[in-house]
Amino acid sequence: MSLALINQENDGAFSDAVRSLRSLNADDLTRMDQEIVMRMHSPVAMIPDLAGHLINAGGKRLRPMLTLSAARLFGYNGGHHILLAAAVELIHGATLLHDDVVDASRMRRGTKTANIIWGNKESVLVGDYIFSRAFELMVTAENLRVLKILSHASSVIAEGEVLQLATQKNLKTTQDMYIDVINAKTAALFAAATQAGAIVASAPQAEEIAMEAFGRNFGIAYQLVDDALDYAGLEGDLGKSVGDDFREGKMTLPVILSVAQANYEEKRFWMRTIADGHQNDDDFKTACEIMNRHGAVKKTFELASSYTDSALENLNVVPATPHTKALRDLVQTSLSRTS
Amino acid sequence: MSLALINQENDGAFSDAVRSLRSLNADDLTRMDQEIVMRMHSPVAMIPDLAGHLINAGGKRLRPMLTLSAARLFGYNGGHHILLAAAVELIHGATLLHDDVVDASRMRRGTKTANIIWGNKESVLVGDYIFSRAFELMVTAENLRVLKILSHASSVIAEGEVLQLATQKNLKTTQDMYIDVINAKTAALFAAATQAGAIVASAPQAEEIAMEAFGRNFGIAYQLVDDALDYAGLEGDLGKSVGDDFREGKMTLPVILSVAQANYEEKRFWMRTIADGHQNDDDFKTACEIMNRHGAVKKTFELASSYTDSALENLNVVPATPHTKALRDLVQTSLSRTS
Repeated sequence: MSLALINQENDGAFSDAVRSLRSLNADDLTRMDQEIVMRMHSPVAMIPDLAGHLINAGGKRLRPMLTLSAARLFGYNGGHHILLAAAVELIHGATLLHDDVVDASRMRRGTKTANIIWGNKESVLVGDYIFSRAFELMVTAENLRVLKILSHASSVIAEGEVLQLATQKNLKTTQDMYIDVINAKTAALFAAATQAGAIVASAPQAEEIAMEAFGRNFGIAYQLVDDALDYAGLEGDLGKSVGDDFREGKMTLPVILSVAQANYEEKRFWMRTIADGHQNDDDFKTACEIMNRHGAVKKTFELASSYTDSALENLNVVPATPHTKALRDLVQTSLSRTS
Repeated sequence: MSLALINQENDGAFSDAVRSLRSLNADDLTRMDQEIVMRMHSPVAMIPDLAGHLINAGGKRLRPMLTLSAARLFGYNGGHHILLAAAVELIHGATLLHDDVVDASRMRRGTKTANIIWGNKESVLVGDYIFSRAFELMVTAENLRVLKILSHASSVIAEGEVLQLATQKNLKTTQDMYIDVINAKTAALFAAATQAGAIVASAPQAEEIAMEAFGRNFGIAYQLVDDALDYAGLEGDLGKSVGDDFREGKMTLPVILSVAQANYEEKRFWMRTIADGHQNDDDFKTACEIMNRHGAVKKTFELASSYTDSALENLNVVPATPHTKALRDLVQTSLSRTS
């Protein structure tokens, strides 16, 4: 069986886990979507148009589901988790809009990005609008602790994005710096999303802390897999645009590990393609071959696996409910996802 | 006496009013600056560097002073107005960063813009960081009503920026649409800044409403004068970069009024220079001449004057203190400012 086929089967397991989580939260997600549509309503037509494109573009809604399930697994029966889940999804959406402008990305989830359809200026300003609306929304949940956590997470995300930009094309970027970047740009929102759910459900402190750690560990693992897939999805890929990180000179772990073990010739290759940004059509294939030689993608998956192990341990502390099981399945299958 | 000299003298009056307000709030402004510096601290060097450039670039700090004085004139003695004033200034700063990217501006207040020094990507991401920090900061004041008002104002500002972009180069833009734009992009923050100050000081409801209206009327007048100066500051200008709005095809009131009264030849001129964006070196001078013929800049100042009248009336409702007098002087002299 080819690697492509194995991946597709395994990805099926991850897709199944996402579907299970989605069906557990089906009613809440419908209410969340209504909340988002309402908040994106504006007489300025470009706003609902662009926001609609972003929100309907087939995202998995992983982050808001973390909030919803985190609240539900502690038996929460109120409605504030809906507002917070919507805020989490909007923060994520605003970040994607600005990311795509900064990276000059053309495709996301198999469709054209908003910056390509509407333009960079429009994406920047509508991103600001979505971000502001996220804050307005979370304020309506009237929980100051949650507000502190979510507003702090937003600062950390932005700081991580700036750090990532600062390390771009810099071959001296270390694994520690890289972990700092993904902790900030990805794991901070996963952690805040799960913690916010636990807080509105008045979870005991130890369990709230466990949920925060769960989100954080899962978030780091999730980003590690993302960064591995950018080099591993060469064959049998299901729509993910492979090679983007390489073309942008992003210092992700597969590159960092390969640079650390590079011989003279390989060092020159990374200098030319990443540091100087001079790339030919064949270079991405060569990069993948070099990585393969050093097992860099495999090691990235192994590190991701150690974080998913920790995330699963975090879940041992909280009540065993269908939501907990669904989160466990999600984490377990996330290592073999291909999209 | 030439117009340039009159303007410089009158601007002296406005500068004096700003200085008076600043000296009344001197201690609070020092504490606010410390708060801002602390919040912009980051191991990612680009953040304090870029934020420092923005914040030290000689802004008047008008908006945060509105918050500080609004709180003080109701006898407030706590410290939360400092946090809110800092948040207001940071929201304004983040907006400026993104504005300069969207408008591709090269100069602001006589120095190079951050997008020119650091780049567009950097300005977008550091703008996001500053914006997030503003929210984090305002949450620490632990006042849900203030949070609702400031987060809503942020959404309105962003919506106004998108609307402005949508009306750009559109000669059918009406005076009502223009007032909507400046109400959102400028007056909303002035209004929220004064209202937030009144709220932390527990002002009676009628006086809180008066302060909100004061901020709103002053904000609209302030933007009208800004937009008039972009065409009126041709001679004797003190550093403001005149003609930017024209070059960007912004549909500000002087253009709207001129288009409404244009003869056939003038209509063709506006079609070419604004709608189609084809401009020669002489066109800005011609635009000013056409406006002069129709008294468009004068009418813009007259409209501004009607808003400052309303703002001054709003102040009749609140206690007569040195802060109230300083705000009154500020509004009265703002019509003749040149920068």
